[in-house]
Amino acid sequence: MAKAISSRSEDYSQWYNDIVYRAGLADQSAVRGCMVIKPHGYALWENIRDILDKMFKETGHVNAYFPLFVPKNLFEAEEKNAEGFAKECAVVTHYRLKNNPEHPGKLMADPEAKLDEELVVRPTSEAIIWNTYRDWIQSYRDLPILINQWANVVRWEMRTRPFLRTTEFLWQEGHTAHASKEEAMQEAAKMHEIYTRFAEDYMAMPVIKGAKTENERFAGADETFTIEAMMQDGKALQAGTSHYLGQNFAIAFNVKFLNELNKEEFVYATSWGVSTRLIGALVMSHSDDDGLVLPPRLAPIQVVLVPIPKPDPVINELAHKIMNSLKTKGIKVVFDQDEKNRPGFKFAEYELKGVPVRIGIGLRDIEQGVVEVARRDTKEKKSVSIDEIDHYVINLLDDIQNNLFSRAKKLREDNTHIVDEWSEFENIMETKPGFIYAHWDGTTETELAIKEKTKATIRCIPEDSKTEPGKCIFSGKPSSRRVLFAKAY
Amino acid sequence: MAKAISSRSEDYSQWYNDIVYRAGLADQSAVRGCMVIKPHGYALWENIRDILDKMFKETGHVNAYFPLFVPKNLFEAEEKNAEGFAKECAVVTHYRLKNNPEHPGKLMADPEAKLDEELVVRPTSEAIIWNTYRDWIQSYRDLPILINQWANVVRWEMRTRPFLRTTEFLWQEGHTAHASKEEAMQEAAKMHEIYTRFAEDYMAMPVIKGAKTENERFAGADETFTIEAMMQDGKALQAGTSHYLGQNFAIAFNVKFLNELNKEEFVYATSWGVSTRLIGALVMSHSDDDGLVLPPRLAPIQVVLVPIPKPDPVINELAHKIMNSLKTKGIKVVFDQDEKNRPGFKFAEYELKGVPVRIGIGLRDIEQGVVEVARRDTKEKKSVSIDEIDHYVINLLDDIQNNLFSRAKKLREDNTHIVDEWSEFENIMETKPGFIYAHWDGTTETELAIKEKTKATIRCIPEDSKTEPGKCIFSGKPSSRRVLFAKAY
Repeated sequence: MAKAISSRSEDYSQWYNDIVYRAGLADQSAVRGCMVIKPHGYALWENIRDILDKMFKETGHVNAYFPLFVPKNLFEAEEKNAEGFAKECAVVTHYRLKNNPEHPGKLMADPEAKLDEELVVRPTSEAIIWNTYRDWIQSYRDLPILINQWANVVRWEMRTRPFLRTTEFLWQEGHTAHASKEEAMQEAAKMHEIYTRFAEDYMAMPVIKGAKTENERFAGADETFTIEAMMQDGKALQAGTSHYLGQNFAIAFNVKFLNELNKEEFVYATSWGVSTRLIGALVMSHSDDDGLVLPPRLAPIQVVLVPIPKPDPVINELAHKIMNSLKTKGIKVVFDQDEKNRPGFKFAEYELKGVPVRIGIGLRDIEQGVVEVARRDTKEKKSVSIDEIDHYVINLLDDIQNNLFSRAKKLREDNTHIVDEWSEFENIMETKPGFIYAHWDGTTETELAIKEKTKATIRCIPEDSKTEPGKCIFSGKPSSRRVLFAKAY
Repeated sequence: MAKAISSRSEDYSQWYNDIVYRAGLADQSAVRGCMVIKPHGYALWENIRDILDKMFKETGHVNAYFPLFVPKNLFEAEEKNAEGFAKECAVVTHYRLKNNPEHPGKLMADPEAKLDEELVVRPTSEAIIWNTYRDWIQSYRDLPILINQWANVVRWEMRTRPFLRTTEFLWQEGHTAHASKEEAMQEAAKMHEIYTRFAEDYMAMPVIKGAKTENERFAGADETFTIEAMMQDGKALQAGTSHYLGQNFAIAFNVKFLNELNKEEFVYATSWGVSTRLIGALVMSHSDDDGLVLPPRLAPIQVVLVPIPKPDPVINELAHKIMNSLKTKGIKVVFDQDEKNRPGFKFAEYELKGVPVRIGIGLRDIEQGVVEVARRDTKEKKSVSIDEIDHYVINLLDDIQNNLFSRAKKLREDNTHIVDEWSEFENIMETKPGFIYAHWDGTTETELAIKEKTKATIRCIPEDSKTEPGKCIFSGKPSSRRVLFAKAY
């Protein structure tokens, strides 16, 4: 069969695209910068969504849905937010098409159906939501509001890549309203922690937790918390952010409440989101030159049963027995009864699609009372007694989940550097990008100068970095703690 | 407490709006014709979505996601479809905002960021999807494709009403591709049947199944199947449609396949959808002058426990015991421990929100070994032995589900007429709208004339209507079967 995946070491960028397209995660579309999320990719997104949705609901959040469009005058209200997104907004100007008199059979935007007030396709929903919250909040009794929304958003990016950066993407955006700064900060921290747990426990992707610098903050936020993961090429990927918005949106939209002392006060806000970008992160965290590698807890198919060489009454009977038994234990199993393709072809296909465990069932093995179990992460195969298969598979899925996490963590450790010399900093970023912990003088000026020279940005001020006197790697000015630098997606 | 619900008999239209807004289903938004779906309304939509999604997957369908935007030249390709939707399309013409030099602080669409090819915000996704299917289909081996999409769509309606007709709405749209007309017709019939089952078994809403007339068909379809429900004012609501699209989109987008005889052929298509409109149908099928009435199978909260008059250690212990026991049986229960409001207020609130069963727990009752159970549909109350509460509640939920269906069916029967005289037809439509089975000569001309005179449209050619010689109610020309007329939402 044709194997069309480039190797990571030869062309990392092409390797990524090959996996996305060949494993059936996404396809290109006729719309600039927009992708089609194919069934295998969408099944992954459904798993991500369902798990996060449960975590949100367990922490008291409810879902709602706000309009896709934001009238331009509302969009303008919070100035920093507007400034941050204005350059990448899709703008609706007309509400009707008509026949084009100059080109029969063609349509054109009807000049008589021009909107007085243009509509922005939401790049994020703070504006439309805070304009609504004004009507919902009068007193501290109406607070907190803990709402999340699953939606599509549009940001007109100049350079796009499937999942990592697309003009339209799917995401969730939480928007909460609180009666005090403390409570809002706690909420932002809580969601930061939920994203961390999701990334590490489900995606098997270790992350560094921290706060963004002022320069890298969300437009309109007073504080942005982020989780940063290392991809296999040593670059960082921002995997989820949680923002403390202070009273910025409340002031912009005049959302006040009567506090317990019966005094009027502006409401405190947070927002937080993760997107289909997580699928790109998954691909680049674990996959190899044979295709996708998925952590069992997110895999749409966890175990595939393949008859060797083809379906047969004895094989089918055993396969159904194993399948049903695993299913009752909550495992997602498929039995591939297709007769058109040979086992070798199927093996390659399931490897490409990242199915964690493959069980080959052949007549000779059955006579010996065994089946052949192959794990996707290490490619190891083992004969396993049919009597013990359930137990073995359940443990193996756990083992794969843990191994992917350890492997990713080791990769990160091997590519993380504590650096005190500028020349070493530059050298690392040029030759073998990774994470660098270095001192920084706290100024945006230095941050931008470093970015200009090396393309590395400050990914975060890590939560667990200790106070430690030092000198800024670039300016030599005094610094009290190290921050995390990396090139980023 | 302030009761702000108008009565159905006095102002049906206001009654509907009152319930939608006061029960917390939706709110108005700053965007013309777009609503905010509030948490209670969205929870209903989540239940609808999850049940339908399961039904789709059990019948072999998978989910995927296609772009929000359709380039105008693709949108034009299938002429009838384009003509049907052109008048209600939101059009994106620019991809950037910039500061407005004439109005400091204001933004404007940047003239330098005008799109060469305008983008239509999808009113439906046949065009973008069939343009993609062309790359996915070469031979009959690639067929069928059974894909569904959960998405938002935009149709610029001139007159909007929450849930029933909004500029943006949420829906699912299935888009399938097949190797033969027979198979595609079977698919369209299968989804028609799934919608029927969902409406009747979950929404407790009886429906008439049938085919649309040519005039009422989906733009681009060869055949449209519909389910039509009667609302409490006697008007019809189209609750779900399934279309056989023939080869129309395959021809427009040049999607061919090599059939088993190795001959090239255009692919056969279906599409099918239901939307947040179903929530409007739910409201108007079952609610009363005290608020929403929800069928237990879709209710976000099925049972609420209310302490009388307020929380107390003995009451709380029993409430938690009942709650936990019901929860293990899969019932959605809430125990209202709020101390700010009195029972009477809470009763009215839960009635307004449509919670099917309310259990009042008071100390005096506990001494007698009973609690008070109230059902939302009939308002009946009954003292029930604490020992039998689980069993009683489970049966009661079933009973409410069945009663809502029977009640809606009786309403429909009471307001359905078999009519052979035009004057009677006109009289019914003027004085007490309902469903009319009447003969029709099969022409669009007659159909439109009847609509013009009475506002009644042909809802469908019912599946179960028998061949029966007769004369058209309007033209007197010969007819072989009765069709269903009604005024419609």
